[in-house]
Amino acid sequence: MKALVFDKKLSFVTDYPVPEPGKNEALIRVRKAGICNTDMEIMKGYMDYRGILGHEFAGVIEQCARKDLVGSRVAGEINISCGFCEYCVEQVHNHCQNRSVLGILNKDGVFAEYITLPVKNLHIIPEDITDDEAVFIEPLAAAYEILEQIKVDHSDRVCVLGDGKLGLLVGQVLSTTNCDLVVVGNYENKLALLEEQGIKTALTAVFGEDGFDVVVDCSGTPVGIAKAMSIIGARGTVVLKSTTKERGFLDLNHLIVNEISLIGSRCGPFAPAIRGIQLKNINPLPLISKRFKLEDGLEAFEYASRKGVLKVILDVS
Amino acid sequence: MKALVFDKKLSFVTDYPVPEPGKNEALIRVRKAGICNTDMEIMKGYMDYRGILGHEFAGVIEQCARKDLVGSRVAGEINISCGFCEYCVEQVHNHCQNRSVLGILNKDGVFAEYITLPVKNLHIIPEDITDDEAVFIEPLAAAYEILEQIKVDHSDRVCVLGDGKLGLLVGQVLSTTNCDLVVVGNYENKLALLEEQGIKTALTAVFGEDGFDVVVDCSGTPVGIAKAMSIIGARGTVVLKSTTKERGFLDLNHLIVNEISLIGSRCGPFAPAIRGIQLKNINPLPLISKRFKLEDGLEAFEYASRKGVLKVILDVS
Repeated sequence: MKALVFDKKLSFVTDYPVPEPGKNEALIRVRKAGICNTDMEIMKGYMDYRGILGHEFAGVIEQCARKDLVGSRVAGEINISCGFCEYCVEQVHNHCQNRSVLGILNKDGVFAEYITLPVKNLHIIPEDITDDEAVFIEPLAAAYEILEQIKVDHSDRVCVLGDGKLGLLVGQVLSTTNCDLVVVGNYENKLALLEEQGIKTALTAVFGEDGFDVVVDCSGTPVGIAKAMSIIGARGTVVLKSTTKERGFLDLNHLIVNEISLIGSRCGPFAPAIRGIQLKNINPLPLISKRFKLEDGLEAFEYASRKGVLKVILDVS
Repeated sequence: MKALVFDKKLSFVTDYPVPEPGKNEALIRVRKAGICNTDMEIMKGYMDYRGILGHEFAGVIEQCARKDLVGSRVAGEINISCGFCEYCVEQVHNHCQNRSVLGILNKDGVFAEYITLPVKNLHIIPEDITDDEAVFIEPLAAAYEILEQIKVDHSDRVCVLGDGKLGLLVGQVLSTTNCDLVVVGNYENKLALLEEQGIKTALTAVFGEDGFDVVVDCSGTPVGIAKAMSIIGARGTVVLKSTTKERGFLDLNHLIVNEISLIGSRCGPFAPAIRGIQLKNINPLPLISKRFKLEDGLEAFEYASRKGVLKVILDVS
């Protein structure tokens, strides 16, 4: 089959073997896939991954032991858990210690004609959600993870740092809480997408004498994290969303004296992401910058890495 | 009056002026005071403080606009708030942005015959709590702050790193929650004080494949913090209790991927600390290593800095 394979460098191949579904897995034909910053971090060495890239997709089940599911349009959770470690026993599957991760760790990803995933990872895409929208379910779930971890309400002053793909989704998600929100970024064209939805944006964080209650760093850079720590108020919460290969210095004394909470945040729940799109609480479509065919994947990656570009969609089949 | 004054170096003086209480303040004669690690950090440069050291005390009110309080035995909260900043308006006085801090920031401390403190900072010491015990109310309140910030219950596997004064108090406080607790330290004689109370201790952290749910670092060193990060489980909480001049490197990617919460923790509520001693849930007395007269304060500090020494009490009057 056709696939975009990363092995020190990215290649488009046509002779990759179609994967064989395991006992509890479905074989899924990929229809559309999205390029995520994590894919680009992997190409810089993050996770030392080798294989087919990609983890955001919409597809159709072609083979499955559950015959009733064949033909269903699905999105899929990316953490494939063992089912027997302490985390799995406690139903914290995303933190399974023996996990593989779609297109990130020991499991071929979605920039290919076919993938396999355990049936329990799959979510049927409602009819009123398009394939384009469905590609955003996985990153949107990651944005909703914040609301699983902390309480945000109308009285909170909240700042999102970063106007990349994740920052714009996080901004939309947090806006649903009616909090006093500002999304800070570098690109007026990106921020305009939020302004159109009534979300306040700025090129520089402006805040009161007592700082923000919540700052979400979606910049994924040590500079962004340092910025977050400088604008958070006492007893505030800094959420770190973006994985990166870089490490950062942290002023731990500032954290202790001001009793700041620093919370790491990764994959999230698909159900609110699906509902959020369905109920039009979230509109991901303006984030699409360009589409490419899978065959033009190298060009798509080059385009995705340009400044100012948001989501690049691969039309697979 | 007699006082231990820090101004680049520590001196014992006999001619320090007795402080004048402000409008809302009481004049308090100090009876006993405790040496805290923070005092020793200040002598290394922490907070750039100059003045009388010390913030843990038991004393008696000698002058006060509230005549009914004169003669009362009191302990005192150390953060002196302005009453009008955003934090004060929200009743978060310990984080007042214009605060002074007893013996730490712009306010003479308790290693002296007299101090002044706002009446609202004072807590009457119940009759069944001795002066020695009362000296521990302030650091014990800091230990109880953890339970204000996070929920700890019987199902949590909890590790306290550090067998210094604060580590031993934190161990006793967390043990009241019935959690599965181990306190890890370097000194068998210190750990024995907890073992006598049925609290599990160890010289090395031993833990299951999925790590601890909560780790409290009371070591105050970058090594301790790194250790905490290495033994915490996914979705676990690391509480940082000890302020220090040192800064630390943190593997933020580890924090993000494993969705760890890192929480700074400082001063805490006096009420549970007083009740904890009164109800014998906490027994601080075995932590007293030695007593000195205020006049012998330099010797007391030298002794307090020795390895293996816990609380040093100054008998002031």
